[in-house]
Amino acid sequence: MILTLSIDAMGGDFGPVVTVPAALECLNKNPQLRLILVGDEAVLQPLLAQALVEFADRLSIQHASQCVAMDESPSKALKNKKDSSMRVAINLVRDGIADACVSAGNTGALMATARFVLKMIPGIDRPAIISTLPSIYGHTHALDLGGNVDSSAEHLLQFAIMGAELVKAVDGKENPTVGLLNIGQEDVKGNEQVKAAAKLLEKSHLNYIGYVEGDYLNAGSHAVDLIVADGFVGNVALKSIEGAAKMIGTSLKAAFNKNLFTRLAGLIAYPVLKSFKSSIDPRLYNGASFLGLRGLVIKSHGGADVLAFVTAIQLAEAEVSHNVLQKIAAQVELILKQRQGEWEHTQE
Amino acid sequence: MILTLSIDAMGGDFGPVVTVPAALECLNKNPQLRLILVGDEAVLQPLLAQALVEFADRLSIQHASQCVAMDESPSKALKNKKDSSMRVAINLVRDGIADACVSAGNTGALMATARFVLKMIPGIDRPAIISTLPSIYGHTHALDLGGNVDSSAEHLLQFAIMGAELVKAVDGKENPTVGLLNIGQEDVKGNEQVKAAAKLLEKSHLNYIGYVEGDYLNAGSHAVDLIVADGFVGNVALKSIEGAAKMIGTSLKAAFNKNLFTRLAGLIAYPVLKSFKSSIDPRLYNGASFLGLRGLVIKSHGGADVLAFVTAIQLAEAEVSHNVLQKIAAQVELILKQRQGEWEHTQE
Repeated sequence: MILTLSIDAMGGDFGPVVTVPAALECLNKNPQLRLILVGDEAVLQPLLAQALVEFADRLSIQHASQCVAMDESPSKALKNKKDSSMRVAINLVRDGIADACVSAGNTGALMATARFVLKMIPGIDRPAIISTLPSIYGHTHALDLGGNVDSSAEHLLQFAIMGAELVKAVDGKENPTVGLLNIGQEDVKGNEQVKAAAKLLEKSHLNYIGYVEGDYLNAGSHAVDLIVADGFVGNVALKSIEGAAKMIGTSLKAAFNKNLFTRLAGLIAYPVLKSFKSSIDPRLYNGASFLGLRGLVIKSHGGADVLAFVTAIQLAEAEVSHNVLQKIAAQVELILKQRQGEWEHTQE
Repeated sequence: MILTLSIDAMGGDFGPVVTVPAALECLNKNPQLRLILVGDEAVLQPLLAQALVEFADRLSIQHASQCVAMDESPSKALKNKKDSSMRVAINLVRDGIADACVSAGNTGALMATARFVLKMIPGIDRPAIISTLPSIYGHTHALDLGGNVDSSAEHLLQFAIMGAELVKAVDGKENPTVGLLNIGQEDVKGNEQVKAAAKLLEKSHLNYIGYVEGDYLNAGSHAVDLIVADGFVGNVALKSIEGAAKMIGTSLKAAFNKNLFTRLAGLIAYPVLKSFKSSIDPRLYNGASFLGLRGLVIKSHGGADVLAFVTAIQLAEAEVSHNVLQKIAAQVELILKQRQGEWEHTQE
């Protein structure tokens, strides 16, 4: 199956320096992949001259005259940057030319633009950001990681429905387990938002296993396929994990850099430390998907290097080839019809 | 200065097996310390027979006939366990016999009992849980780590005022920096709660430096002395950090256990790995304080071992010797008076 992705080639902290080599690596790895690199043609053409010949009909450039800055306000980007690489890449998804779009650009602007251009799936009120986190059990999916704040219980249910479809499609799990992020596992624990959401999740068709605490994102006492949270809480948790990993990495380096003996020990342990580092390499988990829109948009970390951006492109490939968008839309439609049926039933 | 602590000797996952040796170690280390071990005399007497002679007037047993189970509901503990080791230890603080109480017991029951017995400082609505976290800059204090959910902006301000006084007293910092936990640093970011709290903090006397993200708990781009959050968010962040640390530790162990070569490398690197481990040892950060009550209560992790419980006792020693409680009460009274003054001024 041929799949086509539009790449915001100018986005991220490094722009084409990262996006171009990552794109070429993905084209080399997957012969079914077609990429449309969106950005300033004058910049991209010289970088891609050889590749355009090599990959012929699998690679093209779509010109976009503007760039959204990493610190630009989403509303300004939406209003003044109608020909930005980000916007044009999303337009290609809307127009059915690309199956998904990948951008390392400004998250707020990307979300606002994607929502404006693609619109929501009927039945979903807000887009949510989902990502995969490494865990001692393999990996866990978590959402919302910052798309929304002050979400209602109904929003959390919608996130759970969409996330579970994604996990089913991508991981091939029949009935993924869904946990709700909370500050304890007992019924009495939690704020009003999660208590109300728990009631909705219990009544839903989902394989809801109850409350889970923050440690379940990486290392709880059992595996959870999907963890659902309000975007404020999910984002704080994600950033807290990043901070903890950074601190631990810094301490480990400092311990091996203390003196001549420790540096020698480090030299001997180098291959082991390298294999440890790669086992939890965040670049291998780069890429968050916006769910709830009528089109797939993958957000890469702004500071992504080539390896990390390759991971984000491959995430888009996986979601397209597993029909994540169609499956989510179909599931949401089904649930809407069921609710309509229940509603009509109560009216009889 | 003589300081007296009451120790809930029966609390925690291990009870006297941990609390008794930790108590004796602290008595050995600090000749100004007096400890009252609260619990079943029949259990404690034989364990302490020799120590009661050795430490004479610095060690005593206060009998309590009941124990609060680790999974007991706070309301049931409050109602049915009026002679629990936890309750009696807190009573000693209320009665001025002990300067602070340390317990590794059930957090919810400890909080409910402490609040019921000690009452709130006038001007403070809810008790908050504060703890110290290791950071690449040394350490950071954070609150609320789970005392309250659905806190208002005014509650967050109260937490900040109390936390700043604690940091001033314990760390000897004149004007500690205060950050508000959020999902971005721009003004537009955040939920309604933090946006409203930011306005109150800006107008306050505190050295408020603005929003900080989750990574600032351990490793932000600059140091922050105190991070303020709603208890739901703070607790999820803390648990997420615990999970990340556990996963990273598991991966590091697995990398060194892979084969004969890696195990040999691990043997050579052992002293370095040991020094790394101790540099981020969570046992050296054990102990959370309940702020806002008319008495000091320190909560140790339920699974604390002797070293960790010693840390919690030493935290209590530090807070008592720095008059944390008196300083918080005085500061809150001062602010209440100022507000009253402003209020009267607007009425003229």
